[in-house]
Formats: sequence, C-alpha cells, structure tokens
Amino acid sequence: MTLELYLIRHGLAGEHGSYANDDERPLTEEGQRKTRQVADRLHKLDIRFDHVLTSPLVRARQTAEILCAAGLSQSLEASRHLAFDGSLLDWLPWFDQWRQTGAKTLALVGHEPCLSEWTERLVWGDVKHHVVFKKAGVVGLLVPQSGTPVGNSQIFWLTPPRFLI
Amino acid sequence: MTLELYLIRHGLAGEHGSYANDDERPLTEEGQRKTRQVADRLHKLDIRFDHVLTSPLVRARQTAEILCAAGLSQSLEASRHLAFDGSLLDWLPWFDQWRQTGAKTLALVGHEPCLSEWTERLVWGDVKHHVVFKKAGVVGLLVPQSGTPVGNSQIFWLTPPRFLI
Repeated sequence: MTLELYLIRHGLAGEHGSYANDDERPLTEEGQRKTRQVADRLHKLDIRFDHVLTSPLVRARQTAEILCAAGLSQSLEASRHLAFDGSLLDWLPWFDQWRQTGAKTLALVGHEPCLSEWTERLVWGDVKHHVVFKKAGVVGLLVPQSGTPVGNSQIFWLTPPRFLI
Repeated sequence: MTLELYLIRHGLAGEHGSYANDDERPLTEEGQRKTRQVADRLHKLDIRFDHVLTSPLVRARQTAEILCAAGLSQSLEASRHLAFDGSLLDWLPWFDQWRQTGAKTLALVGHEPCLSEWTERLVWGDVKHHVVFKKAGVVGLLVPQSGTPVGNSQIFWLTPPRFLI
C-alpha cells in the first residue's frame, strides 16, 4: 500500500529584495494567473488532495490557496517544516501521525532548494541537486504507508508548469 | 551547455507469450491510439527531436514510427543498445559521437526495466528501481555536452501518459 505525496513549488513571485521582509513577497499577477492554470489542469486530471500543507511564507500560502480555490482540496494548513529553516527529518513525525488518519493524498507547497532536496532524499536517500523543480512545477511520489519514506519512495511524476498549461 | 535527452517507453503491446518470438509483439490498437495521442500532445508542447534512436523490437519501432509520423522528428534509427541485451555503457561511445554532430535533442525509445535504469544511472549514478516508467510515458533529461553523462544529468520531466492525453 502506498500514499500519494505531491510536492508543488510556489508560483512566480515579486523580485527578491523588493520587500523588506522576504517572507512577505507575494505572487505577481502573472504568477497568480499561471498558478491558476496549473491548478485547473490538475483538477481536470482528476487530482485531489486530502490535505494541503504549505509553507507559511506569503508566496507559498497564496499558491496553496489557489490550489484549494480550484477545488483540489478543502483542507489547508500552514507548517513551519516547509519554510526555509524546516527540515525533512523534523517533518517526519507529523507525517507519521497524518498517515495514521487513513488519508491517502497529501500536497506540500513550498520552496526551492527544499522541495527538490526532499524529493531526492525521499526517493534516493541523498541529495545530488539533479532535480529541476520550476516555479509552479509538480512532483508526484508514491510513499509507503508505514516505515520511513526516506529512500523508500518512488517518483511517478515531475513536471514544469509549461507542460501543464 | 546541455543537451535534451528524452526517454520514451513503447505503448501498450499484445500480451507476453502470445507471440512465438517476443521481439515481434506489436502494439495493440489501443496502444497505437494512445501513443498517437501522446505524440500529438508532445508536438503541441513544441517538443521536437533531432534524432530518434529506437530498440529494434516491433513494439518499440512502431512507437518510434508514430512519434515521427506526428512530426516530432525526421530522423529515425534502430539500435541494438536499446534492446533488452543492450547496455548504457555500450551506448555511450555512440552518444559521444552523436553529441559531436552539434545536434541538441535526442529521443530514445525502448523498454522497461532498461529505461528507468538508464534514467537513474544518468541522473544519480546508480539504480534503486524507484522510477515509475509507464508504457508510453516520457522522461526528459538535461545531459552535459561533454564528459560522461552518467551521474551528471538532471531530470526535468517524468510523466505517465495519462497526464498527457
């Protein structure tokens, strides 16, 4: 038995340095539009999430809200594990509890380089920085229902947004 | 500078054991139809191949012919390196020569478990069997223009056909 774990990078945001607090940097209008297109395409592909966990940073939270508004999920939660100082190992106890609820599909909305590093550690156990994870891109993993997912997950999807819209 | 290397698995074929010589097993009608849909979608996404190298087995050759007929490439060649007894290391000298022609995009059409093993060895250097590579699925790699691509390539795309049609 496996669970589906989707990792989704936030959409195009304002330029780095244009906000006093980088955590507040929002999606640009183009970023919002493209993220909506990606969300609509995911919906059309019959993808749904039992739960969405998002980085608390504005550009990620906005991305997660667009996914939910498109009908992909009705359950959204912010988590410090997905901010820049979060770590996969710290997140695992949360994931282990979530797994026990019987839910089957989870989406994580966050940032680079965290998301591609999590992808590589979940699938191969270590990080080579050989995964290209574009803004508003999506990764799909099959994760075991028990035991550690690190090095034990399978990758079935990786796509930049340009192949979704 | 990088090259784009696409790996494409043959479409749905007749049942294993239904042909005296397994190499002759052709695509089913459904396999042909779905492969055409995937090829048309790739064309719409502006994907083109300077060259297509295919396993000589019937189901792979038919898949490659469908890709070419959809306008994705005008250059098709069969190669024993992509048959079941082919190996990545034996293929590398051919690839090295091809790279020197100045061409930029290459598609390989073949079989499992070879294609997902090649993917993992090109990107991470070793094989864990953690890549899910469906029939008529596609992988996209960025491969360096010189030096060995093994363990030095990046993955930017992996998709099952159901997300393409």
